Amino acid sequence: MTTTLQDCRALDEQDPLRRLRDLFTVPPGLIYLDGNSLGVMPKAAPERVARAVTEEWGVGLIRSWNSAGWFEMPQRLGDRVARLIGAQAGEVVVTDTTSINLYKVLTAALNMAQSHSSARSVIVSERSNFPTDLYIAQGLCKERGCELRLVEDEEVEAAITSDVAVLMLTQVNYRTGAMHDMRAVTQAAHAAGALVVWDLCHSAGAVPVDLHAANADFAIGCGYKYLNGGPGAPAFVWVHPRHRDRFEQPLSGWWSHAAPFEFTPEYRPAAGIARYLCGTQPVLSLAALECGLDSVLAAEPLGGMPALRRKSLALTDLFIRLVEERCAGHGLGLATPREHARRGSQVCLTCTEGAYAIVQALIARGVIGDFRAGDERQPDILRFGFTPLYIGFEDVWNAVEQLRHVLESGEWLRPEFNQKQAVT
Amino acid sequence: MTTTLQDCRALDEQDPLRRLRDLFTVPPGLIYLDGNSLGVMPKAAPERVARAVTEEWGVGLIRSWNSAGWFEMPQRLGDRVARLIGAQAGEVVVTDTTSINLYKVLTAALNMAQSHSSARSVIVSERSNFPTDLYIAQGLCKERGCELRLVEDEEVEAAITSDVAVLMLTQVNYRTGAMHDMRAVTQAAHAAGALVVWDLCHSAGAVPVDLHAANADFAIGCGYKYLNGGPGAPAFVWVHPRHRDRFEQPLSGWWSHAAPFEFTPEYRPAAGIARYLCGTQPVLSLAALECGLDSVLAAEPLGGMPALRRKSLALTDLFIRLVEERCAGHGLGLATPREHARRGSQVCLTCTEGAYAIVQALIARGVIGDFRAGDERQPDILRFGFTPLYIGFEDVWNAVEQLRHVLESGEWLRPEFNQKQAVT
Repeated sequence: MTTTLQDCRALDEQDPLRRLRDLFTVPPGLIYLDGNSLGVMPKAAPERVARAVTEEWGVGLIRSWNSAGWFEMPQRLGDRVARLIGAQAGEVVVTDTTSINLYKVLTAALNMAQSHSSARSVIVSERSNFPTDLYIAQGLCKERGCELRLVEDEEVEAAITSDVAVLMLTQVNYRTGAMHDMRAVTQAAHAAGALVVWDLCHSAGAVPVDLHAANADFAIGCGYKYLNGGPGAPAFVWVHPRHRDRFEQPLSGWWSHAAPFEFTPEYRPAAGIARYLCGTQPVLSLAALECGLDSVLAAEPLGGMPALRRKSLALTDLFIRLVEERCAGHGLGLATPREHARRGSQVCLTCTEGAYAIVQALIARGVIGDFRAGDERQPDILRFGFTPLYIGFEDVWNAVEQLRHVLESGEWLRPEFNQKQAVT
Repeated sequence: MTTTLQDCRALDEQDPLRRLRDLFTVPPGLIYLDGNSLGVMPKAAPERVARAVTEEWGVGLIRSWNSAGWFEMPQRLGDRVARLIGAQAGEVVVTDTTSINLYKVLTAALNMAQSHSSARSVIVSERSNFPTDLYIAQGLCKERGCELRLVEDEEVEAAITSDVAVLMLTQVNYRTGAMHDMRAVTQAAHAAGALVVWDLCHSAGAVPVDLHAANADFAIGCGYKYLNGGPGAPAFVWVHPRHRDRFEQPLSGWWSHAAPFEFTPEYRPAAGIARYLCGTQPVLSLAALECGLDSVLAAEPLGGMPALRRKSLALTDLFIRLVEERCAGHGLGLATPREHARRGSQVCLTCTEGAYAIVQALIARGVIGDFRAGDERQPDILRFGFTPLYIGFEDVWNAVEQLRHVLESGEWLRPEFNQKQAVT
């Protein structure tokens, strides 16, 4: 029995999270399946940012470091992130970028591993990991004379040999949406004597994460994807309390000092996660991220991350089913795992040709997903993210209808859809 | 002949830069002498930031990376900074924080110096340098087994021995307002075989800087002080073209890649200053900084930095003269050099007792300066910054009158002015 538009509308009517969409400004006429790249703006953001600009900066000026709580924003926002990733209050700070935070924790992890065994000088990661993670690891390895060893996804556990210091993985793959079992992988790495750094860029706010239950060592993640923090919103960093106060990270700026306002010439790291701060943070962007975090935490009274996860899987199941039912015969394939335990909150499709142009034609029709180029090892990808906070089941139906139209009409062959430009 | 209020008003009337004040929202009743800590808000900022939030993010969403030019913001803003520091277009990027940018250039400088001579493993700086600079150098030295050698201000040139790789200095001292002769110091360091990293946090937008004329090697600086970029605005970094493409910095995130949108697993540094970028930048904070930079560049048709410098020196000369004429007998001293060539855009006072409380009492009277604690080597400091874009000569008169009142009345002795809290 095939699925109908009526079925989708019925699912929306029964959806207990439906009213969360009212917290967001979804532009009319748009089906936005790119919240895994940049989340939609919460309605509260313009007023909150305007207050930070005109009142906190404009009127309060330097006094707002105290009166508006600017100095504590990394911790205050970190406590909100903590609720989404299975961490405790006081364990997370929001600061800098994912890349910078990765450099901090990778360095601390290497120092930690090498304090136990100087023979451990390798970072293992997946070749398909998000490139900036690999670039940062390469930069660090070059400085330290370490090795970054890249393996295929299925080779990860076997690759943790006695020379490996750190396993660095992104929990949900940015290209395929495939998800690791954080607990099992962490356990295997620990058994082999390695520490684990988890990148949660496509997990935080998208899938339930429990860092303590997984016994993870380090985690970092992004503020502008599923956390809806606005373009280039600052990132976050978590370190397990058992490691936190034992090692320093090298980007030891004044915000990580035990007594930052004493202005002493000697560095003395703060206790706790504050030692993973560095320099002065962009307050206006933090103010927007505060609204983004609140927009995700608004799901807490409705069941929180487990409820968001149930809806996310229902949305991605529906998208897969409708694509297979209604777009058959056009050469599409599924790059994302069908198994729920292995799937993040996105669906990626392959196609025999024209992936880039199909995405462009869809964008012209108001369905925003994105394209990720392949190479000799991987096919081109059409990528669709499903943020259950503001995406509904009828949206899924309409997106698939537009995809079907683009494919059946052949409109993706038009020249204007085949001119590449920079897309993130 | 003593100076009168009428004299000050006459100076304002003759001031060719007077109308630039209209570009700023100076809160009524406030004399804001803390632009060296956080610059006043340009009037254009609320609208510009609101547009970035509601239009670029809210409506454009992911499309704004192209349509709103988000991806090029570090370069676009960097080109504006370049006009203020004697650099060429394409030589500066605005990104990350001062501390992070310092880590990048210090690492590149160390690599460069050691590629010529492995015996050079020392970074020399002043003990009175801004603490975060020292902390960053300490973090880096710890990682690399290098040495940070701190000397007194007058010992700098003699300290550049044959084991020194890098001299790291802040051009204008944050505590005293004393300014180095960038050209002479750079020449001396080069003659001794060392590279020079200049911190321009208290120079950019405050005093004329000519990096090329000084033949400098590396420079970094802050967006939220004299550049009026808003709380925690991103920072900037400049590298002399002769060094730029020869070495990499280790924070090699995706924005520094030669082809960031190819998402290849191998890092390949971009040519030019783009290789000093790292991760995704906070767009909303960059939008505010854009207004801040424009507010300084608005002086260009009126004579630019030289005209701002003339007014700045006139303001600080007047402040020193009035304090000495009208606040005599209260134990105040001058910590800032009288010599113009040695003075930045601030005046710092010492006093026999009560520096913290005097600053608090002044703040209660609407005159905002700040306090910097001393130690066994240095006295407590009352610090007053003079941003010629929005500070006038009558402001200086009124500030000194309030200071005189605080001292003569003894109101700084009140308990409420003696309770310390965090102040940046």
